Amino acid sequence: MPKRVYLDWNATTPLRVEARDAMFAAYDLIGNPSSVHAEGREARRLVEDARATLAAAVGALPRNVVFTSAGTEANALALSPGLRGPSGRPVERLLVSAIEHASVLAGGRFPADKIGQIKVSGSGVIDLGHLKALLGDGPPALVSIMAANNETGAIQPVAEAARIVHEAGGLLHVDAIQALGKIPFDINAVGADLATFSAHKIGGPKGVGALVVAEGLAGLEPVLRGGGQEQSRRAGTENVAGIAGFGAAVKVALQALPEDAERIATLRDRLENGIRAIAGGMVFAENVQRLPNTVLFTAPGLKAETAVIGFDLEGVAVSSGSACSSGKVQPSHVLSAMGYDAAVAQGAVRLSLGWSTEPDDINRALEAWRKLGNTLLRA
Amino acid sequence: MPKRVYLDWNATTPLRVEARDAMFAAYDLIGNPSSVHAEGREARRLVEDARATLAAAVGALPRNVVFTSAGTEANALALSPGLRGPSGRPVERLLVSAIEHASVLAGGRFPADKIGQIKVSGSGVIDLGHLKALLGDGPPALVSIMAANNETGAIQPVAEAARIVHEAGGLLHVDAIQALGKIPFDINAVGADLATFSAHKIGGPKGVGALVVAEGLAGLEPVLRGGGQEQSRRAGTENVAGIAGFGAAVKVALQALPEDAERIATLRDRLENGIRAIAGGMVFAENVQRLPNTVLFTAPGLKAETAVIGFDLEGVAVSSGSACSSGKVQPSHVLSAMGYDAAVAQGAVRLSLGWSTEPDDINRALEAWRKLGNTLLRA
Repeated sequence: MPKRVYLDWNATTPLRVEARDAMFAAYDLIGNPSSVHAEGREARRLVEDARATLAAAVGALPRNVVFTSAGTEANALALSPGLRGPSGRPVERLLVSAIEHASVLAGGRFPADKIGQIKVSGSGVIDLGHLKALLGDGPPALVSIMAANNETGAIQPVAEAARIVHEAGGLLHVDAIQALGKIPFDINAVGADLATFSAHKIGGPKGVGALVVAEGLAGLEPVLRGGGQEQSRRAGTENVAGIAGFGAAVKVALQALPEDAERIATLRDRLENGIRAIAGGMVFAENVQRLPNTVLFTAPGLKAETAVIGFDLEGVAVSSGSACSSGKVQPSHVLSAMGYDAAVAQGAVRLSLGWSTEPDDINRALEAWRKLGNTLLRA
Repeated sequence: MPKRVYLDWNATTPLRVEARDAMFAAYDLIGNPSSVHAEGREARRLVEDARATLAAAVGALPRNVVFTSAGTEANALALSPGLRGPSGRPVERLLVSAIEHASVLAGGRFPADKIGQIKVSGSGVIDLGHLKALLGDGPPALVSIMAANNETGAIQPVAEAARIVHEAGGLLHVDAIQALGKIPFDINAVGADLATFSAHKIGGPKGVGALVVAEGLAGLEPVLRGGGQEQSRRAGTENVAGIAGFGAAVKVALQALPEDAERIATLRDRLENGIRAIAGGMVFAENVQRLPNTVLFTAPGLKAETAVIGFDLEGVAVSSGSACSSGKVQPSHVLSAMGYDAAVAQGAVRLSLGWSTEPDDINRALEAWRKLGNTLLRA
C-alpha cells in the first residue's frame, strides 16, 4: 500500500521528532512542578524552559506566558471583561471578526449583548472601516482578530487593527494559532495586547496552548481557579510533558520558518494550479495574502463531505471546514461571512501543508483530485 | 548515589509503563479526533477506548464521561448552577466541605453568597449533622464532598451524604481524585450525581482529568465553549495521547487495586509506627478510616518547610500540605478546619505511597526521619 498523504495540517500536524523526544524525556520525571523537592524542581525547570522559548519566539517576557490546555482555553482566558492596559480604562465590550475560530465567537466571559461582529470582505479580510465604525466613541472595547484564518489562510491586517483599536482606547487580542511557525509573528511588531497559540498546529502535542500578554496588561481573570499555578492565572497541575513538547516544537518550527515557508509555498502554488486546471476548481481568497500552506477550494457541484471521503479512499487525508466543528454538519461560517451561500460553502475542501509535506504528496493529491473531479462531479 | 525515595504520590505518581506505552503509541498518530479521514478516526478510537475504560471502572456510561485538562478543570465544570437530576429542580446553591481541594473551594460558577461550608470533625471527617442543618428546607443544593482527603487520607462518608442530599432534593458531587485506584469507588454504590478524576494520581500523565455524571443528569454548562467536542460539554482539541495514557493507567490501577491496597497499607503501617516512635511524632486523622497510602504527621517543634528540605537532602521526596498550593506559604486549610492552630498546621509533613513503593523506601524514610528528628528538633 502506498503511504498515506496527509494534507490536513491546519487541524493537526504530525508530531516533530524533537517534540516527541522532549515529551518522552519529561514522562520519565516524577515531580509535580509545584513541589519543592528535587523531582518537583526538575519538572519546574522543563516548564520554565518551554515558557522562555515561547516568550522569546513571539517577543514577550516569560512571566507574561500562561500555559493552557489548548488554544480554545487560551482564547477563553483572553476574552475577559475588565482587562486594561497600563494607562487605559477596563474594557467593557468585545468586538470579534466574523471569521474567528468558534472558541472566539463564543465570546469568552462577555455577555451576548456586549459582543459585536466585524465584517470581512469577499476575500475574507476584515473590514477595518467597519471596525472603526463599531469602535466609534463607545466604551473601551477588547477586539479579537486572528492573525490568519484557519480555513482560507487569509492573513489579517492585525498591525493596522492594533493602531485603530489603541487609538479608540481599546485592546487587541490576536488568535495567532495559524500564524505561529508559518509567518513571522511578534506581539510587539503587531502591537497585540494578548495573543494565543497552540502546540499541535506546529508539530507539538495536542492538548497544550498558551496565552501571551503584553507587559503591563492587567485585569486578567482566571477561567480555572483554585491553585496558584501560572502565577494564579490558570489553576491545575501543569501538563509538564505537553508543555515541554510545545517548547521543543516552537524552537524547531521557528528555526525552520524562513526555509520551510518558501519550500511549502512553492508546493502550495503547484497544488493550487493543479486544482484550478481540473473540473473548474476555484480557490477561495486567492487574491489576498495568505499563509504559505493553506488552500481552500471548491468546484461546481462539489460536495465537501463526499470529497473528503473520496480523497480518504485515495489515501489522501483532507478536511472540510475546520476540524473543530466538523462534527456539526453546517456550512463554514467563514465562507458565509465572505458572502458565499450555503451551497458553495458546503462544497469547500481544505488542503493544508506542513513541515513534512513532500513534492510527491502534491502529485498524489492532484492525481486524486483528477479522479474525483472526473467521477464525483459527473455523477 | 543511592536511589531517590519518592513518597509524594498524592501530588504526582511515577508514570506506569502501560500509560507511557499508550501515550507513545498515540503520539505516532496524526489525526484530530474530530476529523473524518482515517487518521481522525484512529485518534477518535483511542479517545473512545479510554472513555469506555474509565466509565466501566467507576460504574458509569461512556457517554457520561467528559475528559478535561485536569482535576481542577473537572471540578470547575462540575460546580455549575442549574444542574438538575432526572426528576429534581435545578440547584441554586453550593455546599462544600471545609477540607475540599482548592479547586472546589473556589466554588466553580456559583456566586460567593450562594456557597456554604460544611464543618469537619477533629479527625477530618465531615459532619453529616451540619450538612443536614445547612440543607434545611432551603432551595436545592449541589453538595461537594471528596471521597478521601488528599492531605490526611481520611475517607469521607459520601454514600451517607448522598442519601441526605437526595432526601433534601439536592445533588452530590464527589471529588474522587484521591480514591480512584486506592479504594473501590463506584458512582452507583455511592449514589454520586457527579464525580471527578485525575490521571496523574494513578500513574497516568499530568494534565488529564475527567468529569463523570450519572445517567439523566441535566443542565451541565460547559466551561470551555466553541467546539462540539465531548458532546459540546468541553470544547478544545482533545489531548489524545494524554487521554490514552489515562485509560491505560485506569486499566492497570484497577486491576492491581486489591493487591496493591493491602501491600501498601502494610508498608504504611510500618512507616507510621516508625514515625510515632521517633521525636514524639504524631499522625493526623489516625483514628478514622483512611486511604491505604497517606500519612500526614508532625512532631513538637517541627517546621514543615525545613523538614521537606531535610528529607530532600536525605534523598527522600516528601510534601508539606498539598502540592497544588505549596507555592503559597500558608498553613493547610484542612488542618485549620480540623481545629489545629497555625503553628501545628505549619509543621505537617505528608508522606504518600504508591504502586512502586518498596519496603526499602520505608526504611530509608524512617532513617531520614530519625536523623531529622534528632537534629532539626534539637536546634
